[in-house]
Amino acid sequence: MGPLAGIPMLGLDALASAAYGPEAAMTLLIPLGALSVGYIGPISIIIIALLFIVYLSYRQTIGAYPTGGGSYTVARRNLGVFPGLLAAAALLLDYVLVVAVGISAGVGALVSALPNLQPYTLWLCLGILFLIALVNLRGVRESGVAFIAPTYLFVFCLFTVLVIGIVKSLLSDGRPEPVVAPPALSAATATASLWLLLQAFSSGCTAMTGVEAVSNGVTAFREPPVRNARRTLTAIIVILAALLAGIAYLSKAYAIGATEPGRPGYQSVLSQLVAAVVGKGFFYYLSIGAILAVLALSANTGFADFPRLCRVIAQHGFLPRVFASRGRRLVYSQGIYALTFLSALLLIIFGGVTDHLIPLFAVGAFLAFTLSQAGMVEHWRRVGGGRNLHNMLINGVGAAATGVTLVVVFVAKFTAGAWITALLIPLMLMVFGAVRRHYHRVEIEISNSKPLDVAGLRPPIVIVPMHEWNKMSQKGLRFALKISTDIIVVQVRAGDKKDELRERWPDLVEAPARAAGLPTPRLVQLPSPYRHVLNPIIDYVFQTRDQNPDRQIVVLVPELVAYRWYHHLLHNKRAGMLKALLLLRGDQNIVVINVPWYLSG
Amino acid sequence: MGPLAGIPMLGLDALASAAYGPEAAMTLLIPLGALSVGYIGPISIIIIALLFIVYLSYRQTIGAYPTGGGSYTVARRNLGVFPGLLAAAALLLDYVLVVAVGISAGVGALVSALPNLQPYTLWLCLGILFLIALVNLRGVRESGVAFIAPTYLFVFCLFTVLVIGIVKSLLSDGRPEPVVAPPALSAATATASLWLLLQAFSSGCTAMTGVEAVSNGVTAFREPPVRNARRTLTAIIVILAALLAGIAYLSKAYAIGATEPGRPGYQSVLSQLVAAVVGKGFFYYLSIGAILAVLALSANTGFADFPRLCRVIAQHGFLPRVFASRGRRLVYSQGIYALTFLSALLLIIFGGVTDHLIPLFAVGAFLAFTLSQAGMVEHWRRVGGGRNLHNMLINGVGAAATGVTLVVVFVAKFTAGAWITALLIPLMLMVFGAVRRHYHRVEIEISNSKPLDVAGLRPPIVIVPMHEWNKMSQKGLRFALKISTDIIVVQVRAGDKKDELRERWPDLVEAPARAAGLPTPRLVQLPSPYRHVLNPIIDYVFQTRDQNPDRQIVVLVPELVAYRWYHHLLHNKRAGMLKALLLLRGDQNIVVINVPWYLSG
Repeated sequence: MGPLAGIPMLGLDALASAAYGPEAAMTLLIPLGALSVGYIGPISIIIIALLFIVYLSYRQTIGAYPTGGGSYTVARRNLGVFPGLLAAAALLLDYVLVVAVGISAGVGALVSALPNLQPYTLWLCLGILFLIALVNLRGVRESGVAFIAPTYLFVFCLFTVLVIGIVKSLLSDGRPEPVVAPPALSAATATASLWLLLQAFSSGCTAMTGVEAVSNGVTAFREPPVRNARRTLTAIIVILAALLAGIAYLSKAYAIGATEPGRPGYQSVLSQLVAAVVGKGFFYYLSIGAILAVLALSANTGFADFPRLCRVIAQHGFLPRVFASRGRRLVYSQGIYALTFLSALLLIIFGGVTDHLIPLFAVGAFLAFTLSQAGMVEHWRRVGGGRNLHNMLINGVGAAATGVTLVVVFVAKFTAGAWITALLIPLMLMVFGAVRRHYHRVEIEISNSKPLDVAGLRPPIVIVPMHEWNKMSQKGLRFALKISTDIIVVQVRAGDKKDELRERWPDLVEAPARAAGLPTPRLVQLPSPYRHVLNPIIDYVFQTRDQNPDRQIVVLVPELVAYRWYHHLLHNKRAGMLKALLLLRGDQNIVVINVPWYLSG
Repeated sequence: MGPLAGIPMLGLDALASAAYGPEAAMTLLIPLGALSVGYIGPISIIIIALLFIVYLSYRQTIGAYPTGGGSYTVARRNLGVFPGLLAAAALLLDYVLVVAVGISAGVGALVSALPNLQPYTLWLCLGILFLIALVNLRGVRESGVAFIAPTYLFVFCLFTVLVIGIVKSLLSDGRPEPVVAPPALSAATATASLWLLLQAFSSGCTAMTGVEAVSNGVTAFREPPVRNARRTLTAIIVILAALLAGIAYLSKAYAIGATEPGRPGYQSVLSQLVAAVVGKGFFYYLSIGAILAVLALSANTGFADFPRLCRVIAQHGFLPRVFASRGRRLVYSQGIYALTFLSALLLIIFGGVTDHLIPLFAVGAFLAFTLSQAGMVEHWRRVGGGRNLHNMLINGVGAAATGVTLVVVFVAKFTAGAWITALLIPLMLMVFGAVRRHYHRVEIEISNSKPLDVAGLRPPIVIVPMHEWNKMSQKGLRFALKISTDIIVVQVRAGDKKDELRERWPDLVEAPARAAGLPTPRLVQLPSPYRHVLNPIIDYVFQTRDQNPDRQIVVLVPELVAYRWYHHLLHNKRAGMLKALLLLRGDQNIVVINVPWYLSG
């Protein structure tokens, strides 16, 4: 893979952020009314500067971890297990939000173009989510074309609009006439305060999400990978910065502001911008289509990353092992299920409105950034001491900048939703810890360095519940005779039916067994005044175990196996219930054996 | 139990029919407008005459079957298995409709008194249904008072209204002034035709449902039971006939007709009648309350009868055996579930509107009547020949009358819903037959009159899947050594991990086994290039079975048993899946043994 394929494959997520980041900031400025457009520029400049710092930091990471340096890996290797897990928790949250925000922003673009769909926002979000989940469960051959075409179309459309818009603006002394006028900015209800601007900046920072992808995928590049990866990252950052700058400039020129999110009349900033510059013709719908496609594909990257990270964490023992095993189509199905469930939950809770998801997204992303950069600082300290001071400084600035941003975002967005991350991330860490402890305890409990213990290998006592004498019960009894010499047949007797089994026992069982020189199975009858069937058997099993503490007790349950599903309705579940009860209430000395009887058709 | 307790206990259902039967007929007459009131009288007279014939027939049944003569029993004993099952199918349908109609008519009374509730008809029906189902699942001690008080209150209220109404009518030369005027009769849209009147009669016949209850419950009466039962039946029939006649008379006098069922503005005939005679005061609400209570209790009798009949049919082998086994609270839970599901289905399909349920109800009830009476004719022929000619005649007239009515009802109501019974009853008979055949086939297949076969009792070949050497796998291997001398340990090897088990096998297992003079378990390693774990094991098991057709193959699966539910999430389900796959794809020669390892807490 060269930079030309790398930009869409690894940059799609970062570039897609341009579709919601600036709007997220502008939504906070709505209360300022017409004054709001004046603040977009400064905020964008700060975000672009921060983006540049982050860029320099990740260039370093690419060089240092050419085999792939995700935040989890970098934090774990350099800072230790706990910071690694913290990064893992942040990343998992981040991936869930990549999915939720990608879809909700895509649907936001869609309902901007087709306002009649606005009331169905949430349903559209869930529909797209399940579609993406289905595609991923079926297993996708990662085909580049699916990424390349929409990404370049997206970049082409937006750049075309930006260039035309800027030219128009310059030709009209900065006061271009919009082709389709954007909705009027609402009346000001507040004045600009530092607090409000900090909040807008915090939301706008989501424009930077996704830039770490290149550092994860260095191995995918052709020789020389590090150089190609760095070129790709540079290209992505330049394009993204240009998009952010262009959007900021034109928003001011055309006096475009955000509209109330999640309300009728909502129209995304990009939709307003494209319509203002080129009108609502073919090119408008092409652009909206490209935006929707890129955002949906960016959600799809969450479906690649989340299960993969879950798998690594599970392999380290901090998540249930099922996350590390592939399903039937060689995909990590459990991770896909979990991700679908969590993003659906977020979409439902927040009504499919991007703006409400932004605070969570920003915190998760910047926590991962900060830990990754801090890990890099430690990396340079370890590998080179003084020699790498320069590198250390770059990553140190990156860590400091993203760390400060994290604190700003967390404080500014606390009441708007960041508090949820303050609960979720410790909760995830607790789950990681509990899972690890459990596996560790089990491992210790069952680990065994000693060779096979051959003491006390007496045949087990075999208990065979029998209702009547038939081929099924004969099969059970024959099996018992194959494995032991100590056999007790138990029959539960309710009511006063004829005692046929007892009467015929000497002829049916005792005589043939004696003739063949086999031990004679005993028949024990258990009275059951209340017509319970299972309890008397279970009681007898426990009683036998208590009387023979040094013996293994085997309960041999003959069971009818039906071939057709509806036959299951016709046979009572007693065998299954007996097995389940014995397993549940049993102990190390009790073993249940199922002797199946297969119906012939 | 004497007649005074018997009337409510066994007559409630029959008496409750007065609350929907006349109205069902009158609903058909709506298109006649003001003329409709003229036809209520003649139709009621025919229904009362038919009721009298049915009464005489059931008096006979009480004498002939003092131990209880339900339609199923009578038809089965006298006419054979198939007519018995036909009666059973008709009765099961009948009981479902007793529940559905009882509830929907009760809710009809309720929404007549409180019209604001009309839009919630279906929800009210379902709410009451689930309440009754819940009470029955919990198990009800059949307390007489719960039946006695509402039934007598119902009879008292209606008789009071009828007497006052008749007196007022007589004092005003048949033109009494209503206290609350009933809704005006709609304009005529049709003229009376024989077809219309037959349809009205067919619907009105539902007023007779429930009269068979006494013949089922003869044993509950105190000495002499037959005489007491007959007195009770007589009393019930007289009261019911008086109610029907009174309702018909007053409907004409006050010009009361049915209102459009299931529409806003619906008001039940009884509600109109009570309001017209005594006004909408305390007594009105008391009457409506009594009607609602009696109808709900009549639905409750379905919950007593349906599971009981299912149980008898299941004991005869025509329904799955679960219907014959009591649940935890000594109720036949499966029957209650089935009844709740079916009546909920009917209520939902027909929107909780009584009128739409009536056609199905009438067919089921009269099919059961006819089969019961025909059975009685055969009964008299068999027990006495010529001696019982008189009795035979009475039941013959009953059979003929109900049979003709059945045909009339079926034809008149065919398009209105009776066609559903024409599908349902054969379907039920097919299910009965299929269930019986299956049980019979299984019985033949497993029946065994020969004594224990002691040939070929060699110990089984035991296959123990093992991932690594730990206490759990040692426990499995020890168990294998207890039951056999022929043990194969299989290990699935994926990838290129260190071959630790193979290296340590001589020390861990072979040496101690040889030292103890035990047979040495073999270690077989199964390569798995695609990292599948279960398939190689299953293939090996089948291969071993094919190579040893005369041996039993035991697959010994060690399994971790967790005490806490959330621990289940942490351990893969491989043991369970292996068991399930072997059971599903296995055969008579393969037995799966589960050796549980209990985690310590």
